[in-house]
Amino acid sequence: MKTVVWQSLSADQQNAVLERPAISDGANITSIVRGVLEQVQQNGDEALKALTAKFDKVESASIRVSDKEIEAASLRLSDKMKQALQQAHKNISAFHKAQKAQPLKVETQPGVVCELVTRAINKVGLYIPGGSAPLPSTVLMLGVPSQIAGCRKVVLCSPPPIADEILYVAKLCNIDEVYNVGGAQAIAAMAYGTETVSKVDKIFGPGNAFVTEAKRQVSNDFRGAAIDMPAGPSEVLVIADETADADFVAADLLSQAEHGPDSQVVLLTPSPMIADQVADAVQRQLKLLSRSNIAEKALGSSVIVVTESLTECIAISNSYGPEHLIVQTKNPRELLPLLDNAGSIFLGHWSPESVGDYASGTNHVLPTYGYTRTYSSLGLADFSKRMTVQELSKEGLQGLADTVVTMAEAEGLDAHKRAVTIRIDKLNQQG
Amino acid sequence: MKTVVWQSLSADQQNAVLERPAISDGANITSIVRGVLEQVQQNGDEALKALTAKFDKVESASIRVSDKEIEAASLRLSDKMKQALQQAHKNISAFHKAQKAQPLKVETQPGVVCELVTRAINKVGLYIPGGSAPLPSTVLMLGVPSQIAGCRKVVLCSPPPIADEILYVAKLCNIDEVYNVGGAQAIAAMAYGTETVSKVDKIFGPGNAFVTEAKRQVSNDFRGAAIDMPAGPSEVLVIADETADADFVAADLLSQAEHGPDSQVVLLTPSPMIADQVADAVQRQLKLLSRSNIAEKALGSSVIVVTESLTECIAISNSYGPEHLIVQTKNPRELLPLLDNAGSIFLGHWSPESVGDYASGTNHVLPTYGYTRTYSSLGLADFSKRMTVQELSKEGLQGLADTVVTMAEAEGLDAHKRAVTIRIDKLNQQG
Repeated sequence: MKTVVWQSLSADQQNAVLERPAISDGANITSIVRGVLEQVQQNGDEALKALTAKFDKVESASIRVSDKEIEAASLRLSDKMKQALQQAHKNISAFHKAQKAQPLKVETQPGVVCELVTRAINKVGLYIPGGSAPLPSTVLMLGVPSQIAGCRKVVLCSPPPIADEILYVAKLCNIDEVYNVGGAQAIAAMAYGTETVSKVDKIFGPGNAFVTEAKRQVSNDFRGAAIDMPAGPSEVLVIADETADADFVAADLLSQAEHGPDSQVVLLTPSPMIADQVADAVQRQLKLLSRSNIAEKALGSSVIVVTESLTECIAISNSYGPEHLIVQTKNPRELLPLLDNAGSIFLGHWSPESVGDYASGTNHVLPTYGYTRTYSSLGLADFSKRMTVQELSKEGLQGLADTVVTMAEAEGLDAHKRAVTIRIDKLNQQG
Repeated sequence: MKTVVWQSLSADQQNAVLERPAISDGANITSIVRGVLEQVQQNGDEALKALTAKFDKVESASIRVSDKEIEAASLRLSDKMKQALQQAHKNISAFHKAQKAQPLKVETQPGVVCELVTRAINKVGLYIPGGSAPLPSTVLMLGVPSQIAGCRKVVLCSPPPIADEILYVAKLCNIDEVYNVGGAQAIAAMAYGTETVSKVDKIFGPGNAFVTEAKRQVSNDFRGAAIDMPAGPSEVLVIADETADADFVAADLLSQAEHGPDSQVVLLTPSPMIADQVADAVQRQLKLLSRSNIAEKALGSSVIVVTESLTECIAISNSYGPEHLIVQTKNPRELLPLLDNAGSIFLGHWSPESVGDYASGTNHVLPTYGYTRTYSSLGLADFSKRMTVQELSKEGLQGLADTVVTMAEAEGLDAHKRAVTIRIDKLNQQG
């Protein structure tokens, strides 16, 4: 990892150091995905089978995974694995249950009652990527909040063959339907529905460039489906002072770097000593990793920044807006009120990112790529929507009538005014 | 308004009755807007001046509205108008203050503390359309939550000349900067910044097709800005039983119809008598309106549906997902638990939509066009984001280590596992 001294850089250089790599414009991906979406809309299940044969090289899988297969998967898993997944499910459930919105009722003026009620999104679709290893943790992160929110139908798509761990967690989370479908075709199936796959209202989950582009396209189509949030490469930023353990910091940086060659890894420290020690430790630990080639590529665009103070570290972090922010300082909780624009914050020496990735209870689906400025960590709210309710008594309407009539007149909206005056006239007649 | 009997229709006919008109594909609008965005990004203030001269026919206005002008606007307004706007501000503030999220802290297992913290979005931009009459109510609906959330910078753009009412409310809401800029160029200025206009993180507010398209484009550009929600024509659906006052129902339908020729207006009733009475009352009241030509056009694509029961009314409404839902029945509160997919619900005979449009306290920025299935009524949450925080003690990490290690092994993520084991090893050494 290269090391830079922040105050020795020009403003332009500072910007360049923390600039995220451009996401490839992907005109090619755009049109491939458009073709897949059209195919699935036109030919439904038949298109899903053809595309699965083409992209996943799987011919025989039925589209729907049967309950029998899900039961069988559970029997093949070790008890140790099931216990770990159950513990994670328990913690994630506890944290997401606590997010249940309380009903809200305010009498803003006498006889004028305003309420906010929360309802589950009816039908949701969860996408779980395939790849070299299964991702049961992502099933937990999407399945648990859908379960707690009370979504009426929860659908899961993943490219075949679907790993036992994924099927087991799908059952833990009471997911209603599991499909052997991956890629852009899975997003299309959930957004538009096919003979077999249920159309959903909102689609959640990570994926490769094709999945991301498919989510973007269906979310821009009003007949499609809403999506969780825009996607980008995964990131970690660590703030460390001289009390940090360089081995711990290095391990945390590497656990992000192994995600993919486009992962972003940043260390900010006011201590040149820690900067040196971490750089060494990263090189040492890198050799021990099975995915060292991936991590090494990610480290190529990563950086250690030596700052003048912790205050400067915080300013840089807030400006960068990392997905994961790990604070390994003497008094990390004192810094919390100053930290902003992060997906998830890990406080202290004993809180590595991997606990949040798996099992502490927080969600690992987080805004990336600077979207932390406006988007939230995935939570119960994303599986729900808020509706307002109002109920006025006769007296309530009488008390508010002048205000509404005056404003409707200013806006030149006659009928808005009349909807009030016609009622007030009736009350006066009854008077 | 045409009247149909629901059970006499085929499923296809039922769908057709409540199908929303397609939003024009607007390839032309797309490229015009793209050009405007490019112009503003390249030429900044100069482009804004040129585009304002071209589209708004205003040459002389400075881009920024001075504090002096805002003061002067306040002096020109009547006391009655100021009192109405203040009352609305007070009620909307009361309802949005009650939405403040409480900090959330859960110890999911011993020594593992997970938190959810809410922070204001730093910089927000509010767009207020121009047109035949000013829209101070929209300034309240966007300005109040930005003020209560505690956004650090709030910027407002509106096409010149900006009405006194708008400037007055901007001051009531402590909006920091007001600009004489409208249309797609205003969205571009707020998304990318110019020499004068501050770049913001998220843009809120309604607008014409150009504004809507500009919001879509900047929200799809990661260097742009987030937006509040997708836009569509305004809608009302009324559920009325035989206890409803046909004059009230007709007034409510018309207050939606006068918004624009593409407004959607639907009445569902199990009472053929109410259906007839409302149809008559609409014709009668229509003639009294200053905007009767607009309302008449909207009524052309609107419908009265006679159902078999209130239960059927509810099912149809939940499937349609109206922006505004007015329930004028004997016991409207009993129906509330069954109602879903609505932006805002108005209960009872004394709760016309116009109270919510202006001054009851609820927000009038609501999802339309069926987006009620997944999007929420605008509220404090939209001006904030939620970050998760976690802090583990040594004991907390020890208690969670096996679970994390087992899951990391299943996912083939070595470095994730090592970030835990390197800490546990150190604890054992210290042991």
